[in-house]
Amino acid sequence: MSGETIISVDAMGGDKGPAPIIAGLARSARKDPSLQFLLHGDDEQLAKLLRRRRVLRERVDVRHTTNVVPMDIKPSRALRTGRDSSMWKALQSVADGEAKIAFSAGNTGAIVALAMLVLRRAPGVQRPAIAVHWPAENAEGHNVVLDMGADIRADADTLLQYSIMGAEYSRLAMGLAKPRVGLLNIGSEDMKGRQDLREAKDLLEGFVTEGNAGFEFLGFVEGNDITTDSVDVIVTDGFTGNIAMKASEGTAALIRKAMKDAFTHSILSRFGALFALGSFNRLRKRIDPRRVNGGVFLGLNGGVVKSHGGADALGHSSAIHLAAKMALDDFPARVAARLANLNSRSASQAHEATSGAGEA
Amino acid sequence: MSGETIISVDAMGGDKGPAPIIAGLARSARKDPSLQFLLHGDDEQLAKLLRRRRVLRERVDVRHTTNVVPMDIKPSRALRTGRDSSMWKALQSVADGEAKIAFSAGNTGAIVALAMLVLRRAPGVQRPAIAVHWPAENAEGHNVVLDMGADIRADADTLLQYSIMGAEYSRLAMGLAKPRVGLLNIGSEDMKGRQDLREAKDLLEGFVTEGNAGFEFLGFVEGNDITTDSVDVIVTDGFTGNIAMKASEGTAALIRKAMKDAFTHSILSRFGALFALGSFNRLRKRIDPRRVNGGVFLGLNGGVVKSHGGADALGHSSAIHLAAKMALDDFPARVAARLANLNSRSASQAHEATSGAGEA
Repeated sequence: MSGETIISVDAMGGDKGPAPIIAGLARSARKDPSLQFLLHGDDEQLAKLLRRRRVLRERVDVRHTTNVVPMDIKPSRALRTGRDSSMWKALQSVADGEAKIAFSAGNTGAIVALAMLVLRRAPGVQRPAIAVHWPAENAEGHNVVLDMGADIRADADTLLQYSIMGAEYSRLAMGLAKPRVGLLNIGSEDMKGRQDLREAKDLLEGFVTEGNAGFEFLGFVEGNDITTDSVDVIVTDGFTGNIAMKASEGTAALIRKAMKDAFTHSILSRFGALFALGSFNRLRKRIDPRRVNGGVFLGLNGGVVKSHGGADALGHSSAIHLAAKMALDDFPARVAARLANLNSRSASQAHEATSGAGEA
Repeated sequence: MSGETIISVDAMGGDKGPAPIIAGLARSARKDPSLQFLLHGDDEQLAKLLRRRRVLRERVDVRHTTNVVPMDIKPSRALRTGRDSSMWKALQSVADGEAKIAFSAGNTGAIVALAMLVLRRAPGVQRPAIAVHWPAENAEGHNVVLDMGADIRADADTLLQYSIMGAEYSRLAMGLAKPRVGLLNIGSEDMKGRQDLREAKDLLEGFVTEGNAGFEFLGFVEGNDITTDSVDVIVTDGFTGNIAMKASEGTAALIRKAMKDAFTHSILSRFGALFALGSFNRLRKRIDPRRVNGGVFLGLNGGVVKSHGGADALGHSSAIHLAAKMALDDFPARVAARLANLNSRSASQAHEATSGAGEA
C-alpha cells in the first residue's frame, strides 16, 4: 500500500454503525484513486458491507477487532475500557507509522482522551485543540475556528499555540498564503477585560511583529465576525467555542425548520416551492452542514479527523477528503515544525532572560 | 399623565438619531392608547419630528437636553461625560419616580454604566444582568437568555441570582407560571468541569428543592438547546452569552444572504420566488430579529429596556411594547421582592451557621 494516501479508519464509530462509514469511504474512493484504507472493526460485519462496494476492492486492509467504544461513554471510562477498540487501533496505526491520519466518527471526548494517550502531544504542545470549518461568506465557504472543546480553558500561551496551529491548518484546508487570525472576544471596550485575553493579544502582537509568524493578527474579533470574510482563523477556548458552535447550529436548525414550514403552509406555497426547487436545492447545498463536516485534532504526533457521529455517506466522505489532504501534505509534521520554532524562540528568550538576570 | 403607562425615553440614542425612535413610539402609541412618553432630547429636532405624528400629540412631554452619549463611546468615558445627556435623564426620570421604565437604543456599555450609577443595584443584587429574547421553537416564539454582557464573569451565587431574575422575567414576558431554567454548559461529561458551573448547579438544586423557587431547574443545557422548546430560561455569564448571541446572529445573517442569493439566481428562481412570495414573507416574519428586539436590564432599582442601535420603527416599537409590559406589571419591584426572599433566606442560613458554630 506504499506510495498511496493511507487513512486509518475506525469503522465502528458513529451513531449508525459501520454502514454509512463504508458508504462514505466508497464515495471518496471513487473520487480519489490514490486513497487506501486501514479498516479497524468487526471482520464479519465489514466483509458484508464491503462485498457490495466494488470500488473498495483491493483498497482496504481490514484489521479485525470486536471491542467498540460506545457513543455515550465518558472519556475516563473510554481510557479504562477502550484498549484494542476500533478507535484505539485506528489511532495506534498512526502511532506505528502505518498511516499518517486516523479517521473516526465516534464520541468526541473518547477520541480526545485516547488520542492523547496513544499519539501523545507533539513536542512543545501544551494542549491539543479541535478545529472545525465554520460556514462563512468567503470564497472558500468557511472559516476555521478552534478550540471546539478539546479543553475547557486556555491561557495566553495556549491561545498563541492555537493561533499558530490554526493558521497552519487554514493554509492546508483553505489554501491561504497568509491567513488572518482573530481572537474571539466581546464588543464593548471596557468589557475586553478578561485578563487572559488581553495577555494573549499582547503575546500574539509581539509574536507577529518578530516576523516569520506566517499569519496576520487582527486582534479581537466578535461572534458575528465568524461567518464573515473579514477573518480566516478564529481562536478561542474550548468552552466558548463549543457553545458558540452549538448555539449557531441551533439557530440554523430553527431557520431550516421555519423554511420548511413556510413552504408547505398552503397549496399556493407548495406550488411556489415547486417552481423555486432549483433555488431551494442550491440554498440547501450552501447551508448543508454535511459539506463542511470534519473536526480536526491539532497538536498530536499524527493527525486525527473526527466526523460527525450522525453523518451520512456524504458527510463522512467530506471528512475523509479532509483527512486525505492532511495525509498528503504531511500536515502533523508541518504543525510540529511551526511549534518547534516557537519553542526554540521561547527557550532562547528564557535563556536571555536568565543570563540578563545573572548579569544584573 | 397619571393613571397611564409612562415610559421615559432616551430619544437621541441609536445609530440613526431620533427619527426611527419617534416613528417607533408612534407605532406603539397607535396600538396602545394608554402609553405616555417622557422624551429626553433636543427640543428643536424632536418638535420637528413630532409635528408629523398626530398620534403622539398630548402624549409626550419633551425634556430638553443637548448632551448626547455617542454610540462608540467607552463606558468609562460615558460616566465622565454623560451627565445630563438624554440617556442619563431618561434614567434619572425613573430614579425620581416619574416613570417605571427607561428606554434607550444607545451604546449598551454606556447604558449599563450610567444605569448602575443613576438607578443603582436593587437591594441584595450582586450583579445586574441583561436578558434578551432568543428566537426558539416554542409557542411564544422565543426563550429568555441572560446575561448578554452586563458583566464578563459570573460566580455560582451570581448565576443563582440570574436564574431567579430570569425566571421572574420570563413569567412576565412569556406568561409562564413555572418556567424551566437551564445552566448553559458544554456536552461531554468530563468537560462539565468548570468549577463555578458545578457549584452553581448544586446551589440551584438546593434552592429549588427548598420549594418556593417559582421555577423548575433542569440542570445543564447545551448551546443547541437554546432554540428548542425544552427550556425557557437559559443562564450563563455575560462573556459566553454575548459570544453565543453574536455567533448565532452571524449564522442567521449568512443564511438570510444565501436565501436571497438562491432566489435571485436565475429567471426561473425569481419566478419561483414570486409564487412563493407568501411563504417567503411568512418565513421572513418568523426569523425577523426586529420582532424580538429588546434587551432588558434586571436587578436595578427601576427597569431599563435597551433597543438595538440599528433598529427601525418596527424594532423600536417591539422594545417599547416590552417596556410597557414591564411598567404595567411593576416588574422591577417584583424582581426585588424575589431577591429579598433569597437574601433573607441566606441571612437566616448564615445566622444558623453562626449559631451552630457558637454551640460547637
